[in-house]
Amino acid sequence: MNSGITISNRKVSFGGISLTEFIEKYETPLFLFSEQRLEDNYKALEESFRRYYPKTEVFFSVKTNFELSILKTLRRLGSKAEAASALEVIIAKKAGFEGSEMVLDGPAWTDNDIKFCIQKNISTFNVDSIDELRRVNRLAKAIGKKVKISFRIFPEIRMSILKSFIEGYISKFGIPLSQAVELYKEALTMDHVIPCAISTHIGSMITDPRYYEKTVQRLVKLAADLRDELGINIEAINIGGGFGVQSLNYYSIQNVILNKAGISQYSKAASIEEFGKRIGQKFAKELKENKLSEIKLIVEPGRFLVSDSGILITRVVAVKDKWIFIDGGINLIPESIFFIRRGFLIANKIGQEAKYEYNIAGPTLNTADVLAVNQKLPKMEVGDLVIVLDSGAYSLTRSNQFTILRPDALYITKDKKIKYLRKKEQPDDILNKLIP
Amino acid sequence: MNSGITISNRKVSFGGISLTEFIEKYETPLFLFSEQRLEDNYKALEESFRRYYPKTEVFFSVKTNFELSILKTLRRLGSKAEAASALEVIIAKKAGFEGSEMVLDGPAWTDNDIKFCIQKNISTFNVDSIDELRRVNRLAKAIGKKVKISFRIFPEIRMSILKSFIEGYISKFGIPLSQAVELYKEALTMDHVIPCAISTHIGSMITDPRYYEKTVQRLVKLAADLRDELGINIEAINIGGGFGVQSLNYYSIQNVILNKAGISQYSKAASIEEFGKRIGQKFAKELKENKLSEIKLIVEPGRFLVSDSGILITRVVAVKDKWIFIDGGINLIPESIFFIRRGFLIANKIGQEAKYEYNIAGPTLNTADVLAVNQKLPKMEVGDLVIVLDSGAYSLTRSNQFTILRPDALYITKDKKIKYLRKKEQPDDILNKLIP
Repeated sequence: MNSGITISNRKVSFGGISLTEFIEKYETPLFLFSEQRLEDNYKALEESFRRYYPKTEVFFSVKTNFELSILKTLRRLGSKAEAASALEVIIAKKAGFEGSEMVLDGPAWTDNDIKFCIQKNISTFNVDSIDELRRVNRLAKAIGKKVKISFRIFPEIRMSILKSFIEGYISKFGIPLSQAVELYKEALTMDHVIPCAISTHIGSMITDPRYYEKTVQRLVKLAADLRDELGINIEAINIGGGFGVQSLNYYSIQNVILNKAGISQYSKAASIEEFGKRIGQKFAKELKENKLSEIKLIVEPGRFLVSDSGILITRVVAVKDKWIFIDGGINLIPESIFFIRRGFLIANKIGQEAKYEYNIAGPTLNTADVLAVNQKLPKMEVGDLVIVLDSGAYSLTRSNQFTILRPDALYITKDKKIKYLRKKEQPDDILNKLIP
Repeated sequence: MNSGITISNRKVSFGGISLTEFIEKYETPLFLFSEQRLEDNYKALEESFRRYYPKTEVFFSVKTNFELSILKTLRRLGSKAEAASALEVIIAKKAGFEGSEMVLDGPAWTDNDIKFCIQKNISTFNVDSIDELRRVNRLAKAIGKKVKISFRIFPEIRMSILKSFIEGYISKFGIPLSQAVELYKEALTMDHVIPCAISTHIGSMITDPRYYEKTVQRLVKLAADLRDELGINIEAINIGGGFGVQSLNYYSIQNVILNKAGISQYSKAASIEEFGKRIGQKFAKELKENKLSEIKLIVEPGRFLVSDSGILITRVVAVKDKWIFIDGGINLIPESIFFIRRGFLIANKIGQEAKYEYNIAGPTLNTADVLAVNQKLPKMEVGDLVIVLDSGAYSLTRSNQFTILRPDALYITKDKKIKYLRKKEQPDDILNKLIP
């Protein structure tokens, strides 16, 4: 695949478009997405899983990026959608997804969320607690429908490298595996929910496919237990997303400890081919051993598909000793540099030796608005074009309007046309919400 | 002052309004602000400084909270405004502030920001780097005006408890004191800037006034040096904000180390009376010793004024083992619990013994969406009313639309009328920006 960033003759291209001339026509900061890259990522992922388990279905995680053209591209490629709220269902529908092509995830839906999603015929509600189950049943009854549910199971995989505090957080989502059968049993007593699926999500930016193999083993075993103990026919097992992106450096606690332990194999994410192979093979094998068949395997990727499908193009506004300030920062890419380290390209200085060390700061008056520390770069000046790589995931959907409005976002279509995904905000977008 | 939260007869009141009946009329989540509390905070701050240094002026930090009625209240009380961008100038003007009543702060203004602010006659540009200085001069020249500037000085106070990494970050803002005279000299060579002020900001949530005393000492000395070496007449010294809020627990690295060292005096913030007294006295004394007079002392409070003037009212959506999920979280109050620990009140269970330990999570599908861990509470159930205290600062201005739209915000006026600050967002507020 070379649909992402390429460099030749000291020119940076993205999605097949040369950036240096392109950017002269636009203001920075500017988000730019590549349809071709998105398609290549999607196909690589889908094929990697289906090669080893054909009955795999992809549900794109809408919260990662909900630009309409991006959702439309994914739907054209065969993706379905994972929504986290009524708002995301509304957005996904606008992009063409039917309710039947969506699942709903989340630990704290409002009653309005649930009612809306029942009315829109969302295929499955991935329920996170007994309280949510009761509310879904009550509201489905009021509307006069029956809805399919799964429980989000916390598979109690001990990621041995994550200790104490972080491990405490992991239990936030899902129902412990040990309580699962009891909850499905409770669901069977309710008239307006049909427990027929199992879901999970084991974390973000997982580099090592073995965690998914263990997860698959436990969830398939649970499906067999539910068949044997309760007579439940599980139609789908949803293993969530979290497949690592190879072009991102995860400065996570996990990797720091892996590195200290001298374990290099998965300090960089496994390839999607390896994720697909290991997970697909394991899933097929476990089904066979548990005498189960025809269970759909659902994956819910987000970051893997859109991360390197998007870049943020910025310019240097000020240089001060070892600090450079660019015109986009945590207002647009809110992820902490403590967990994710992105790549940077100085588009107008390709080929110059990166022999100076800089901290790269965003434009907001916030101490935490720092995109990188001790980054080796060429000698930097005001006006230099700084490309922030891997900016497609959890950027616009988590962006805010802290002192600065949100910028334009453009899409390079497969035929290399430029299309607006969104126009930059105007002061009235804020002022119209404020009551004098 | 009892204009904030009060509890009597097992009822919680805020701004003089009893919450339990009040909230029945509204949907949660809901922001609620008290004009009386804001006024009490403002007067306490202004009087504390003016008692010891009458020529003190207050510039409210607009980025902390830009609801129009809140800005109007502050302007009525005599506050001026500190803006961080053209957007904030636009908002502050809408609330009635003139350009001459504002200063502009920030390390990375765009050319458009600078041009706009010159045209609007912003009183002083607090310049963060030589690059910004050059751009202000160039753009002022193009417009044909002269603008007053200060340099933001990094006073190189070593907060001995902040080491290595954090200290590296502190240098992000401002110009090192050692380079200051040189930069003022450079500014004197430019025709369209008038260097006549000094500014700084030493950090957020400072609990100990001694840091300001050291700062004041160094900046007044700089004013004397500028007079002696360059003949510059400094009209104003702006010490920024950062005065700690007593009702907040700062779980900052600073406090952890202070506690470990057994130093309790300032592990809770000093009172505003003490900040005002220590800073005002020191400022007057240093002016006298340096034979300076008539220099304005400018303070730029934000959090101190609005933090406990606002609360977020939420309801419990689900309880799962030791986790409770409420309907507002880091989408609305994005500050990390690692740095700030807020208080919580269960408005419908006042008086019940807090003998159970819970983690309080927000509604979004984000591992970091946790407002408190190991919080002692009464036995919790779906529907319980959770009041998140100290939610008035850096909440709406930094909020995002991650999977959930922003809610209503209400204002309790001094005469106890209820007024909308903003109406909750609708899906079209997002959809109208997305291009199909």
